Amino acid sequence: MKENDIQRPTLIINEEQARANIKRMADKARNAGVRFRPHFKTHQSALVGQWFKDQGVSSITVSSYSMAAYFADHGWNDITIAFPINLRELDAIQELASRIELGVLVDSSATVSALEKQISRPMRVWLKIDTGYGRSGVHWDQTEQIIQLARQLNEVSHLTFRGLLTHAGHSYHVRGSEAIQAVYRESTQRLQSVRTVLLDEGFRTVELSTGDTPCCSVVDDFADVDEIRPGNFVYYDLMQTQIGSCSDGQVAVTVACPVVGIHPDRSEIIIYGGGVHLSKDSVELEGHRVYGCLAEMDGNAIITIRRDAPVTGLSQEHGVIHVPSDILNSLQVGDLVYIVPAHSCMAVNCLRR
Amino acid sequence: MKENDIQRPTLIINEEQARANIKRMADKARNAGVRFRPHFKTHQSALVGQWFKDQGVSSITVSSYSMAAYFADHGWNDITIAFPINLRELDAIQELASRIELGVLVDSSATVSALEKQISRPMRVWLKIDTGYGRSGVHWDQTEQIIQLARQLNEVSHLTFRGLLTHAGHSYHVRGSEAIQAVYRESTQRLQSVRTVLLDEGFRTVELSTGDTPCCSVVDDFADVDEIRPGNFVYYDLMQTQIGSCSDGQVAVTVACPVVGIHPDRSEIIIYGGGVHLSKDSVELEGHRVYGCLAEMDGNAIITIRRDAPVTGLSQEHGVIHVPSDILNSLQVGDLVYIVPAHSCMAVNCLRR
Repeated sequence: MKENDIQRPTLIINEEQARANIKRMADKARNAGVRFRPHFKTHQSALVGQWFKDQGVSSITVSSYSMAAYFADHGWNDITIAFPINLRELDAIQELASRIELGVLVDSSATVSALEKQISRPMRVWLKIDTGYGRSGVHWDQTEQIIQLARQLNEVSHLTFRGLLTHAGHSYHVRGSEAIQAVYRESTQRLQSVRTVLLDEGFRTVELSTGDTPCCSVVDDFADVDEIRPGNFVYYDLMQTQIGSCSDGQVAVTVACPVVGIHPDRSEIIIYGGGVHLSKDSVELEGHRVYGCLAEMDGNAIITIRRDAPVTGLSQEHGVIHVPSDILNSLQVGDLVYIVPAHSCMAVNCLRR
Repeated sequence: MKENDIQRPTLIINEEQARANIKRMADKARNAGVRFRPHFKTHQSALVGQWFKDQGVSSITVSSYSMAAYFADHGWNDITIAFPINLRELDAIQELASRIELGVLVDSSATVSALEKQISRPMRVWLKIDTGYGRSGVHWDQTEQIIQLARQLNEVSHLTFRGLLTHAGHSYHVRGSEAIQAVYRESTQRLQSVRTVLLDEGFRTVELSTGDTPCCSVVDDFADVDEIRPGNFVYYDLMQTQIGSCSDGQVAVTVACPVVGIHPDRSEIIIYGGGVHLSKDSVELEGHRVYGCLAEMDGNAIITIRRDAPVTGLSQEHGVIHVPSDILNSLQVGDLVYIVPAHSCMAVNCLRR
């Protein structure tokens, strides 16, 4: 789309950079000998899925039945729904399992019992393990509970216990490569210790699946796991640059927004681009919560993220950007500015429709 | 929709309560003798628009050209786009102005010049005045600038200068009826002082338009203005109960979410319902940022908002709710819970599609 044709807040994807991000991660996985099962919740797009196919990707991750059905309808045959299985969608999930290789997650005995009673189709099941993030999953040190769940799964003939899956989302809380690698090592060691317990109990194959973008971006040696599932890396975002997962130039997404107001007295501009476009997800930047930053562009490519021009406020449709004088003086009402969102998964979800 | 049919995060509107909220506000406006021009950005629905028509509403407010076009296509003929006019949509806005009575907002000379050059259709123009919120508009004490803009507008034959419009959004930052009324009085006095200046300068009619939900909810006497434009009041939400705009029982929106995990050790449940459903807008509750609270329901009606069961975390698809033991002990994986969102405009925007 030509800049002059943009009338409203518009998602701008740098395809060349996104393809480079995909290739880099696919190469890393190939070199490490692990399965690459990228998470498609970030882009939720069959078109972008093709860019992954072009790198030899055939197995994917999603975070809802709806996404799984969408990608199954677009020719993907090996999908893990990396979300605690929603018992209210069992009929639809079962139908999907009759069409494709479907993997699901459980973390409670009640859920396994429901799968036993209400499901008859073969399904691969992962035990979701909490290695420190504290959201979903059985806590890694609850080994008795994990053994019982694995046994319970093994007793159901149509369920195949596949292994242990974690999302070390606490990597989002640290900053810098060294700290991220420490999260990865700790999380992976915890998964491995659980696997050792299960192997000692007589379970034959217990795969390990991990995958958050910060860890997968900075770690090169995945010898300890069988599968990685990063997602956000396809576009990255302001949050990932702050964590230390990527450089500014690797960010492949911006949102083009019309300038609708200029307030020199407050060093602020007002854009058409609010919470319904950028989402209200935020990241800390020099002690302040910001929703994104203005970027200097060369076509669709980011030259510089202007951290001195943060999005400091978002209403439903308005955005407020605090800008230094060089930007203030160069802009007019009706111009376009390009915003690097705090969190690309959320902004893309807002704007893709 | 029957509870058993709900599979995924689902917007639940209490029609009876929403209609009561509409009737109450319409009656207040009628009794005060002011035009009721409700903001439709909250519901963005032609169906809900009909509930307003049933109360005699014929003039409405929206916050984008897209919304204006949608409601024009559904038979609304008198619409104000209460957003600084986006010069990149002028062709579409002009086309719309040829079909309906369209009002737009300006707050800069550059914008008026653009309208003069690029627009030929008659259009009503409001000067957007900042009475203290600090987002869009000319600051109320910049009287010279306001006079010049009004004169500039009067010189353009196809533009009709209609009056002064404000959004006293800083009412969202206070708590309690008295503080809200103080914001209303101050904001309205500022608008009136600007009107007095313009009348003294020879302008003949200068209407005043105001309208934020907190002020319009607690003020009864609108004798000082010509028009009110509240929007959020149709559903209200957790934020409005905290501000003091409404009672818990007046909230007409919840989001039904399946329970997918129960973690008694952490007193937490995990729901299928994340930032893409509830939005990541938050409100402060007892010193913490929360994204909503669990509600006890009677059908679609809220009995009690459980402020001791707040949504403390949201990922893309997951929500984390901290729950007391009575709720923890009563729930099973696969149950539904009902969440009052922090901000209904944002949650409805996520879920209406």
